[in-house]
Amino acid sequence: MTDLIQMGKQAKAAGYELGSLGRREKDRALLFAAQALKESADEILAANALDLEEGRKSGMSPGLLDRLALDEKRIFSMAEGLAEIAGLPDPVGEVMESFVRPNGLQISKRRVPLGVVGIIYESRPNVTADAFGLCFKAGNAVLLKGGSDALRSNTAIEGVLRRALTKAGVTPDAVQLVKSADRSVTAQLMRLNEYVDVLIPRGGAGLIRAVVENSTVPVIETGSGNCHIYVDESADMDMAVKIIVNAKTQRLGVCNACESLVVHDKARAKLLPRLYRALLDKGVEIRADRRARPEGESLSGFEDAALSGKIGAASEEDFGTEYLAAILSVKTVDSLEEAIAHINRYNTGHSEAIITQNEENARRFLNRIDAACVYVNASTRFTDGFEFGFGAEIGISTQKLHARGPMGLRELTSYKYEICGDGQVRP
Amino acid sequence: MTDLIQMGKQAKAAGYELGSLGRREKDRALLFAAQALKESADEILAANALDLEEGRKSGMSPGLLDRLALDEKRIFSMAEGLAEIAGLPDPVGEVMESFVRPNGLQISKRRVPLGVVGIIYESRPNVTADAFGLCFKAGNAVLLKGGSDALRSNTAIEGVLRRALTKAGVTPDAVQLVKSADRSVTAQLMRLNEYVDVLIPRGGAGLIRAVVENSTVPVIETGSGNCHIYVDESADMDMAVKIIVNAKTQRLGVCNACESLVVHDKARAKLLPRLYRALLDKGVEIRADRRARPEGESLSGFEDAALSGKIGAASEEDFGTEYLAAILSVKTVDSLEEAIAHINRYNTGHSEAIITQNEENARRFLNRIDAACVYVNASTRFTDGFEFGFGAEIGISTQKLHARGPMGLRELTSYKYEICGDGQVRP
Repeated sequence: MTDLIQMGKQAKAAGYELGSLGRREKDRALLFAAQALKESADEILAANALDLEEGRKSGMSPGLLDRLALDEKRIFSMAEGLAEIAGLPDPVGEVMESFVRPNGLQISKRRVPLGVVGIIYESRPNVTADAFGLCFKAGNAVLLKGGSDALRSNTAIEGVLRRALTKAGVTPDAVQLVKSADRSVTAQLMRLNEYVDVLIPRGGAGLIRAVVENSTVPVIETGSGNCHIYVDESADMDMAVKIIVNAKTQRLGVCNACESLVVHDKARAKLLPRLYRALLDKGVEIRADRRARPEGESLSGFEDAALSGKIGAASEEDFGTEYLAAILSVKTVDSLEEAIAHINRYNTGHSEAIITQNEENARRFLNRIDAACVYVNASTRFTDGFEFGFGAEIGISTQKLHARGPMGLRELTSYKYEICGDGQVRP
Repeated sequence: MTDLIQMGKQAKAAGYELGSLGRREKDRALLFAAQALKESADEILAANALDLEEGRKSGMSPGLLDRLALDEKRIFSMAEGLAEIAGLPDPVGEVMESFVRPNGLQISKRRVPLGVVGIIYESRPNVTADAFGLCFKAGNAVLLKGGSDALRSNTAIEGVLRRALTKAGVTPDAVQLVKSADRSVTAQLMRLNEYVDVLIPRGGAGLIRAVVENSTVPVIETGSGNCHIYVDESADMDMAVKIIVNAKTQRLGVCNACESLVVHDKARAKLLPRLYRALLDKGVEIRADRRARPEGESLSGFEDAALSGKIGAASEEDFGTEYLAAILSVKTVDSLEEAIAHINRYNTGHSEAIITQNEENARRFLNRIDAACVYVNASTRFTDGFEFGFGAEIGISTQKLHARGPMGLRELTSYKYEICGDGQVRP
C-alpha cells in the first residue's frame, strides 16, 4: 500500500533541502540525471516494452500506443531536455523588489521555490523526466502521479533519476512517483494540503476537470484551448490566409491550434473562397454559419466547384468545441464589438488573435479580449514557453491566479517577504 | 430565490466593463460611493439596528455583537477607506515586462484585472464596502456573500454603493450581494467557475477551511497565523522583551500576533524571568515546556515569587494552536537548526521572527523559514498591507500561489501577454 502521507513528508523535507541548494549543485545533479538516462536506455526500454505489450493486449488505440512508446531517440531527447534546463538561469533567490519604510523596516520581496509540486499526468512517460527537471531547477520537490498504462516506464525513469540524485549528493526524494494504480490514492493526493503546495494536471480536458473539481490543494489549470482568429475588415488577406492555415494545420491536436475563425462581414468575400480552398487542400473540414457558406450566401468565388457542397453548417455547439482535429468553425460578425463579445463568450482563456491593419482595432482587441495570450497579426501557435524564450515549459495556464499563459521556471516559484529591523514594534 | 448564475453573468459583464475604465472614472465612482455612505448613515444604521436586535434575541455573544455593530464613526471610517483607495495608484495596464523575439514578435506582459472576485465573509459589515473598494479600483467586479447575521446591514450598504455607481455612470453590477441565507447558495458560489475567477474567504479558520475544501473556483487562503518569535543566543534581550510583548499583546485575536516563543537554551536565563514578569503584568497566560518553567528548571530569576506557580505546562497541542487570545506557548531548543525545524513544522505560513545580533543566523533564518513574512529584530505585527505601504489590504495570503503575505491592489490583478507581429507563423 502506498503511504502517501509518508511520501508527502519526504517531499516536504526534500523541498526544504532543495530550496537551499545553489545553482551549481542543482545543475550538476541535472547533468548527472541526463547522463544516467542515456546510460540506462536499455533498462527504460525494457520496462516500456512491458507497458506497450499490456497496452496492446488491452486494446489501446494506435495513437495512445504511440504516446506511450519510447525509443532511444525519445530517451535521448528527455536527457537533452534536462541538460537544457541545467543551462537556464536559476530563478530562486532573485530580489524582486525592496524598499524601506518610514520606521526603518527594510522589506525585500525575494523569489523562493513553491515547495512541493504535484503533477498528475497521462500516458506520456517523458513527462516524468521533464516535470522533475523543471521543478528541481526551481528548487521544488515533485510528487508524480502518472497514468497506470505507463507505470513500468515511469517507475524505471524515476529509479534512474533517484539514483543519479543520490550520486550527485542530493536527496533522491526530490522526485517520487506514486506507484499505486488505486484511484483513491489519486484522490488522496488531491487533498494532501499539508504537504503539497500546488497541483498541476497535465493531460486531456477530462483529467484537468477531475483535478479542478476534486482537489483541495491549489491547482494551476492548464491546457484547454478553444482559440479564435478574428479577421478584421482591414486585414491583409494574404497574411490572414497564411496565419489561419498555419494556426489550424501546422500541428493538429495541440492546445494553441486555431479552432474557430471569426470573420467580419466585409472581409468575407476577400477571404473565404481562397481560405477555404487552402484549408480543404490540407484536408480541413469547415463548419460555417449561414453567411459563410456557399449555400447560404452568394459571394464571388463561392461558385467555385471546389467549394460547392464542401462546407458544412456550424451549430452553437461547434463554437464551444475545442476540436483538437482537422476541423474549423466559422462565425460571421458585423463589427469588432460583436467579434470580441463572441470570443469572450466561447474562448477558454488561452490564445486569441486579430488580423488587422487598423491600429485602433488592434488596441481594442488587445485590451478587451480576456485570454492569457492575445495576438495581433501572428499565429496562435506561438503560445509556448520555448517560443516565448523561457527556455522551458511545464504547461500553459488558462487561469488567472498565479501564472497565466506559458509557465517556465519563474512560474514554478513563489516569493517571501524578508523584513529586517532593529527592534521596531507596532505602536 | 437567488439566481446565482444570473448574478454571475452580470458580474462577468461588469468585470469586462470595469477592465476598460480609466483611473479617473474609477476614482470618481469611489468618491461618489464614499459620499453616499456618509449621506446614508441613517439608513444603514436603521438596518444595522434590526440585525443587532435579532442577534441579541438569538443570544449572540457580546464580542460578535460588537463586530456586527455599526455607528456613525464606523460608517465614516468605511467612507474614508473608499476615499483613500481613490488616492492610490491604479495597478491596471502597467507593462510588467516587454521583449522582442528573434522572429520579430513583440511580447508585452501587461497587468489586467482578475475579473470577478467572490468574497465570502463573516459578520463585520464594513467588509462589504472595503472589499468592493479594493476590487473595484483593481478593475474587478465583486460577488459578496456575507454572514446571514449581517444581512440587513450588508443589503443597505450594497444598495447605497449600487446607487452611487449608477450616479457615477458605472454599472451597479460592479458590486452584488448574494442575499440568500441558504447554505446551498454558498455552495453554488464556490463552484461557479464559469463566472468567478477567484474566491477570497475572510473570517475564522473554520470558514476558510470550508471554502478551501468545497470550492472548485481557485481560492486565496488568508488569515490563519500561528506566528513564532525565536530568540537566539546572541539576541539583545531588551529588544527581545519589547518585541515579544508587542507582538503578543498590542492587539489580541489578530492573525499576525505572536502565539509561540521559541528560545535558545542559552538565552533562557537572560530572557525568561523578565519576559515572564512583563507578560504576566499584561495578563498573558504562559504555557512552557519543562526547561522554560520554574518548576522544571532552576534558573536565576525563576525563584521570584511573582513567577512561581504561575507558568503552565505546554503540550504538543499548544505548539500547534493559534490561540487568538492572551496565551503564549514557550519551546526551548538547543540550536538554530532545531528552532527552524520546529517553526517549519508548526507554523501556518504567515509571519515568523528571529531576534538576534548574529548576521549569519539571521540570514539562515530568513532563507530557511517557510512563511510569507520572515522578520529579523522586529514585531510580527507589521504583517499588514498598510504597514507595508500598500495603502490598503484585502487580506493576508498564507498560500504560495499567486500572492503571498499582505495583498493590496496589485495582488488583485493578473496579467495577459500581448503579442504583436507582422504575419509570423510557426515554422
